[in-house]
Amino acid sequence: MKKVGLIMGSDSDLPVVQKAADKLKELGVPYEAHIYSAHRTPVQARTFAENAEDNGFGALICFAGKAAHLAGAVAAASMLPVIGVPVKSSTLDGLDALLSTVQMPSGIPVATVAIDGAANAAILAAQIIAVGEPELSRRLKDDRAKAAQTVLEKDAALGL
Amino acid sequence: MKKVGLIMGSDSDLPVVQKAADKLKELGVPYEAHIYSAHRTPVQARTFAENAEDNGFGALICFAGKAAHLAGAVAAASMLPVIGVPVKSSTLDGLDALLSTVQMPSGIPVATVAIDGAANAAILAAQIIAVGEPELSRRLKDDRAKAAQTVLEKDAALGL
Amino acid sequence: MKKVGLIMGSDSDLPVVQKAADKLKELGVPYEAHIYSAHRTPVQARTFAENAEDNGFGALICFAGKAAHLAGAVAAASMLPVIGVPVKSSTLDGLDALLSTVQMPSGIPVATVAIDGAANAAILAAQIIAVGEPELSRRLKDDRAKAAQTVLEKDAALGL
Amino acid sequence: MKKVGLIMGSDSDLPVVQKAADKLKELGVPYEAHIYSAHRTPVQARTFAENAEDNGFGALICFAGKAAHLAGAVAAASMLPVIGVPVKSSTLDGLDALLSTVQMPSGIPVATVAIDGAANAAILAAQIIAVGEPELSRRLKDDRAKAAQTVLEKDAALGL
Amino acid sequence: MKKVGLIMGSDSDLPVVQKAADKLKELGVPYEAHIYSAHRTPVQARTFAENAEDNGFGALICFAGKAAHLAGAVAAASMLPVIGVPVKSSTLDGLDALLSTVQMPSGIPVATVAIDGAANAAILAAQIIAVGEPELSRRLKDDRAKAAQTVLEKDAALGL
Amino acid sequence: MKKVGLIMGSDSDLPVVQKAADKLKELGVPYEAHIYSAHRTPVQARTFAENAEDNGFGALICFAGKAAHLAGAVAAASMLPVIGVPVKSSTLDGLDALLSTVQMPSGIPVATVAIDGAANAAILAAQIIAVGEPELSRRLKDDRAKAAQTVLEKDAALGL
Amino acid sequence: MKKVGLIMGSDSDLPVVQKAADKLKELGVPYEAHIYSAHRTPVQARTFAENAEDNGFGALICFAGKAAHLAGAVAAASMLPVIGVPVKSSTLDGLDALLSTVQMPSGIPVATVAIDGAANAAILAAQIIAVGEPELSRRLKDDRAKAAQTVLEKDAALGL
Amino acid sequence: MKKVGLIMGSDSDLPVVQKAADKLKELGVPYEAHIYSAHRTPVQARTFAENAEDNGFGALICFAGKAAHLAGAVAAASMLPVIGVPVKSSTLDGLDALLSTVQMPSGIPVATVAIDGAANAAILAAQIIAVGEPELSRRLKDDRAKAAQTVLEKDAALGL
Repeated sequence: MKKVGLIMGSDSDLPVVQKAADKLKELGVPYEAHIYSAHRTPVQARTFAENAEDNGFGALICFAGKAAHLAGAVAAASMLPVIGVPVKSSTLDGLDALLSTVQMPSGIPVATVAIDGAANAAILAAQIIAVGEPELSRRLKDDRAKAAQTVLEKDAALGL
Repeated sequence: MKKVGLIMGSDSDLPVVQKAADKLKELGVPYEAHIYSAHRTPVQARTFAENAEDNGFGALICFAGKAAHLAGAVAAASMLPVIGVPVKSSTLDGLDALLSTVQMPSGIPVATVAIDGAANAAILAAQIIAVGEPELSRRLKDDRAKAAQTVLEKDAALGL
Repeated sequence: MKKVGLIMGSDSDLPVVQKAADKLKELGVPYEAHIYSAHRTPVQARTFAENAEDNGFGALICFAGKAAHLAGAVAAASMLPVIGVPVKSSTLDGLDALLSTVQMPSGIPVATVAIDGAANAAILAAQIIAVGEPELSRRLKDDRAKAAQTVLEKDAALGL
Repeated sequence: MKKVGLIMGSDSDLPVVQKAADKLKELGVPYEAHIYSAHRTPVQARTFAENAEDNGFGALICFAGKAAHLAGAVAAASMLPVIGVPVKSSTLDGLDALLSTVQMPSGIPVATVAIDGAANAAILAAQIIAVGEPELSRRLKDDRAKAAQTVLEKDAALGL
Repeated sequence: MKKVGLIMGSDSDLPVVQKAADKLKELGVPYEAHIYSAHRTPVQARTFAENAEDNGFGALICFAGKAAHLAGAVAAASMLPVIGVPVKSSTLDGLDALLSTVQMPSGIPVATVAIDGAANAAILAAQIIAVGEPELSRRLKDDRAKAAQTVLEKDAALGL
Repeated sequence: MKKVGLIMGSDSDLPVVQKAADKLKELGVPYEAHIYSAHRTPVQARTFAENAEDNGFGALICFAGKAAHLAGAVAAASMLPVIGVPVKSSTLDGLDALLSTVQMPSGIPVATVAIDGAANAAILAAQIIAVGEPELSRRLKDDRAKAAQTVLEKDAALGL
Repeated sequence: MKKVGLIMGSDSDLPVVQKAADKLKELGVPYEAHIYSAHRTPVQARTFAENAEDNGFGALICFAGKAAHLAGAVAAASMLPVIGVPVKSSTLDGLDALLSTVQMPSGIPVATVAIDGAANAAILAAQIIAVGEPELSRRLKDDRAKAAQTVLEKDAALGL
Repeated sequence: MKKVGLIMGSDSDLPVVQKAADKLKELGVPYEAHIYSAHRTPVQARTFAENAEDNGFGALICFAGKAAHLAGAVAAASMLPVIGVPVKSSTLDGLDALLSTVQMPSGIPVATVAIDGAANAAILAAQIIAVGEPELSRRLKDDRAKAAQTVLEKDAALGL
């Protein structure tokens, strides 16, 4: 199965990235995590992205806050689907990261999920990789069914 | 090759949808377009989404404005990657559609692109479908190289 | 007397929902509370909404955060007045939920109240149900008079 | 059948109000329209609201832009359900009117619809008045079915 | 000397109001504080405003959060200059109160100060009342000179 | 009677300033208009403000767009009440000017009115100057009564 | 004298860039203009930036809209001062470009000017280059004095 | 070497200013810090700015929150490059300070960095001063290389 790349712009993003890693582990999707900054180590970020397809990756998830350029920079250097997770930082509640990630110019898309939406980024990456991976497809369906079941059980137990 | 589904919430979204259709055509990706409203025809939208995988779709692109629920509703009914295009309407400059599309709760991701970002949605769908489609991969790379070439030619011709 | 349905998208919304339940209890309005997610259990949410009128409900209150689609999805499946309470979550201070709830397209209204405005949602539901319920009308008037009285007593006691 | 009151803060709101009137006419709901300003004619606005229930109204719709206080002022003077339509004016794209209308303090709800959402306000008022009016209920259902039918026909005719 | 009226929409605004009272006391300006809600006790708010000029007030300061209508309602009922202090509440960081206070329609101005800007509201009221009160003018000038002096002393002591 | 100073940061603000001048003329309040920029002619702006009280002004109205510092700069140099009119410019719909004008730090208030709210600024200035000017007070009351009368006549003529 | 580099992300930014070029010409500062996209031609953008200092540039101005990464990408590849001009595009009034340009992470500053603030970017670049260029310093002072003079002449001619 | 001026509008900005001072110390750039308020001590702020060039400063950094006029006022009084740091205060998350600092009118640029972006302001000032200071240029390059190195080491140590 192809791997998912988890690239964060700074190790301060780790608590958010961890949730994506946990979800991928739960779904049985292999991943590899890296810290590469679009601004402090742009060449390494670019090199990683350029080689990602050849190195067995099927999708890349980028995590960054503030003027979040990482996902866009990675998307500019790879033909793989790139998922962007805007990370909330100390000001503006993540709106800066959301707009910097999602408002990409024509030609270079970034598949943006919610602010701090790490688990959803992992699920989206798994959905992309699931093509030709019936076992993963089944696990994704199970995961969703389990989430639905949890809602229904909570509803049944609701003592309001 | 798998098809891309283009689902718009209203025919007023057509000028935006057209740009995605044009780009898919240009990339040689088959598509099928529908008007289904998350609110006015929710059952049809749901039915379409539930059967999309079996009906040969590989990715779905949803277009909606204002309280843009369409992508989320479709994503809730299919395990395919769902791409959301927030459409700008008469007020709030598309911010309402962007937040309604991207801020999905945990479990049901929507791969959101820029407001009115139809061409990028098409490219993202093609990137997802390109797995195991070397010819499409090549066309995507050509398309990107051509865009780069255009920039370089414009730079060379710049008379400022 | 007709019942009020309280539907929340997630049990994390319970602290907000509780305030609506408390106010309905105080006003003597029967209610029934459920957890149904527009995205994780869309069919159950829809089924509940489709049958709500026949099951003795007179108004429905939906609570959801982020890309808050629940009220819209319920409104699309019922002819009852549907009240939406945008719930503040960890980012964007509830603005995402407010816009996702209130900016509904033509044809399917959601009666939106303030972010986390659960007590007001309960009062609005009671005002709707009060038609032909003179006792409830009286209780609503008493409740409002009592609130005014409290303001006046606080004013009289003000030691500034 | 009870009447719907349409109250606008200024005659510049007329193009928006007209859409509500048209929809009410289409649904066969009687209405009465007035221009009362929360700030320029506050006493008249208040007097109208205080007497609205006795004068045969079943719901009130208020239209106002900018610091839109009209719906709140009317809601403070009547126990009827009050619907607020924030009207977009020359700056801020209606966000000022939306927040001024929806963010009501505890005790006095305003059922807020989308910016310039006049048709939805009319439908919501009709849903409230439809209690005990089976003919109106039927017309509301027909109206919604017709809207769904229109979407389906447009989908069938879509030549994309 | 004319009095300043301090009117708050709720006793939850007291910590903010206290700062205005403190500043007025410091400047030797008499004041009278009240709790009147534009929505819960609109008639009392109006009556107070209508009689304020005759009762010896020279300026009115209104404090309110969320859909802050109080200053506008008071301004509509008095020819005195009315100052509005938008109060930050639990969501939206006071932006709702700011827009609801400042974006008044033509004819009824509210002199709006910063969110939670109680001391400035007091100074502004004192500036208005200072006409024909040379002693108050002197105290205002002294207060400002003292503030400047404090800045200069802090600058001189700065050990950075 | 004391004069009102109208100070604009740029002659591009003239169409907005004109509305204030017209309203002052209508109310019989003398005024003097100037173009002084807080940034391009800061010394002249300051000198004007420092001498305004001695030169017979009773209130100052400042008009500026974008990073609108003019009202704050003038208020820092005069003890007169200073009214700020945020002017909408080519981007951000006047929100930049509003926040730059209203969010003044403690000690130096600016009485801010709505974006482009020139007529209200004039009325507020007149209310401030009206102290000890019974004729102006009467004109202000007449003006307001006339505005109310216009609303009532429009209501009476409403053919909706 | 050192040159100023003008780099735009797309030729659609040309009308804005032209204003910077005009101002530099007026100030007698040599410049060189290029079209390089952070996303479509990232390598060329990087190469240009890496060699800019050696190629005789003293400051770089980057123009980009939407998720405006260009200034950040250039700043990451050069030790020269980099000025960012957020360009307003079809949605969000330039707020996306502003936040994407200014909210840079620690280590890589971008000197951001106003949305579409091309002339100011040129002046800022000239101020930076003016060190050791007394003639340019004089021209900058003349330019500013001339702007002040224009304001004063307009004030003198004001017929309001 | 020329000095950097650090000017803060209030001593409450000190924690942010300290980070700029620390970074300048680290880079070996001399600085001088002052507290001058654009509103409380405008004359001192202006005098400092007018003499800054003659007093050996090469760049000025201004720190201010809310309606942050300090950088603009200083820029209007000096031909030196002026850097503005918008400081987050108790409301609006620094958006008010950002817009008040960056949206300067044509003619008077302020080089704005991120909200609370003190370290970047220091680096930008050092980049400006580094012209003709090869030792400082080297330290800036070392600082950036060290930051890159830190990222790479954290990446190598990443145990995710």
